[in-house]
Amino acid sequence: MAAASFRSRHLAIVGLGLMGGSMALTLRDYADTITGVDPGPETRELALSRRIVDHATGDLRAGVADADAVILAAPVRTVIQIVRGQIGAYLRSNTLLIDIGSTKQDICEAMGRLPIGIHAIGGHPMTGKEISGLASSDPRLYVDRPFVLCPTRRTTPATRLRALGLVEALGAIPIELDAARHDRLVAAISHLPYLLSVALVSTAATEAEEDEAVWQLAASGFRDMSRLAGSDIRMMGDIIGTNTQAIAVLLAQFRLQLALLEKMLLSRDEGKLAETLQPAREARLHWASKYNR
Amino acid sequence: MAAASFRSRHLAIVGLGLMGGSMALTLRDYADTITGVDPGPETRELALSRRIVDHATGDLRAGVADADAVILAAPVRTVIQIVRGQIGAYLRSNTLLIDIGSTKQDICEAMGRLPIGIHAIGGHPMTGKEISGLASSDPRLYVDRPFVLCPTRRTTPATRLRALGLVEALGAIPIELDAARHDRLVAAISHLPYLLSVALVSTAATEAEEDEAVWQLAASGFRDMSRLAGSDIRMMGDIIGTNTQAIAVLLAQFRLQLALLEKMLLSRDEGKLAETLQPAREARLHWASKYNR
Repeated sequence: MAAASFRSRHLAIVGLGLMGGSMALTLRDYADTITGVDPGPETRELALSRRIVDHATGDLRAGVADADAVILAAPVRTVIQIVRGQIGAYLRSNTLLIDIGSTKQDICEAMGRLPIGIHAIGGHPMTGKEISGLASSDPRLYVDRPFVLCPTRRTTPATRLRALGLVEALGAIPIELDAARHDRLVAAISHLPYLLSVALVSTAATEAEEDEAVWQLAASGFRDMSRLAGSDIRMMGDIIGTNTQAIAVLLAQFRLQLALLEKMLLSRDEGKLAETLQPAREARLHWASKYNR
Repeated sequence: MAAASFRSRHLAIVGLGLMGGSMALTLRDYADTITGVDPGPETRELALSRRIVDHATGDLRAGVADADAVILAAPVRTVIQIVRGQIGAYLRSNTLLIDIGSTKQDICEAMGRLPIGIHAIGGHPMTGKEISGLASSDPRLYVDRPFVLCPTRRTTPATRLRALGLVEALGAIPIELDAARHDRLVAAISHLPYLLSVALVSTAATEAEEDEAVWQLAASGFRDMSRLAGSDIRMMGDIIGTNTQAIAVLLAQFRLQLALLEKMLLSRDEGKLAETLQPAREARLHWASKYNR
């Protein structure tokens, strides 16, 4: 069996934010040339001056035309537009096309309609930082983090091996899932938590209209639970807007769990309340210790 | 006007956990003698061997009989039992009695029924650590953190000043609130977040019954949102069990906010969804920067 490995003569990274910039830094030794494609002139200038990329352009066609590997590191809806748009006509045959969008069904479906000969596979690295933007790029952003790969109708066995090699080059842990399964899973561990965080902050803000001291008292528990509510709206709007069905299912399940807790609380049966709290505590502690999170 | 200040000839701390132990370490220079009262022989031994306290006993009466200041640093229901029980008969007249329980109405109400001459006031320091227990004690645990003081029917002006002096000695920021207002506020910023965290982990665990990969994919967002679910059940059960009414009101408000988000999400109107997400993002960022959290 062929081994997973990644080399590129000419790598194009579309989107020079935190994720794309960190890719460029990490893949420096795996590509002869790196071209960055980004609509922002200042971002391109920064990428060139810090030698994060060798070439930079705002023109997608010019940026990807000569590449043998292309990473789409833009917001989800932008990735979908690019894949549904002209990129199929711009790419050379046998080029690896991978994205890093946070939802995968729409993207992988669109990748499946690309011309035969494009080697397309969906990707989702489970990593990030509070601060976005190229200036925060970090060559260790992907190290030891899960990196989901989702096959498309344009994923050949060779595509898969090359993508696995890319994940290995990044130091990440590959997890192969079909797109629908990926989207259900991230609804549970990422999109639902985001919506809970937003609804919590909205609730606190409503209370604060009556009593400003809410903000003064809020401490580390609130800090952790409200952090996700501070996420970039454009990025999160794209993500949850392309995963509405899976999120709706999870919200229904969450409501059940919360109603059960409330019932136990209001029934004032301390033994039963403790029994309801205990499994979640054990699951959380087990997860944190098993996965070292 | 008399200035707030704290000195004690003989300070008794009832409950030598993280909170009580940290108090003892911080108040070393403000008390001639410190006695620790704890039911655990090993805890008492550790407190003595590390010189966190000068004397240690498992007997409440013996521990508090000579004190001129007593801090109740036990779980909420234990504090309620102690205040409702015999402590009023054990204490000398003019002794300062303060607790650090996380809910205040039941405790302050019980304090109000103590014999006249006991100077009782409710307290709630907004601090903590993931690891509990005396061994984790930290003399800086209270520094720059809010410390709520709630008056009772046994709070004289002198009681208040002495308690403010105690808060100052700890390096904390005093916030004076009546008990009912305190309990409403902490329901919003502490008890509701805890229940959301538990319900989130329960939801993920239910998903994991169908697909184990849930745990493998869960990353930093889930880590933050699930941390509170790992809290000590005894401690949290006491806390939420003594604040059910305020929590029920907040849960109703939260459900409204979550339903509004779900409606915007399912209506697939991206502009309106963004408009709904934006105020929470701004409130969160404003809070984090204003209070440096």
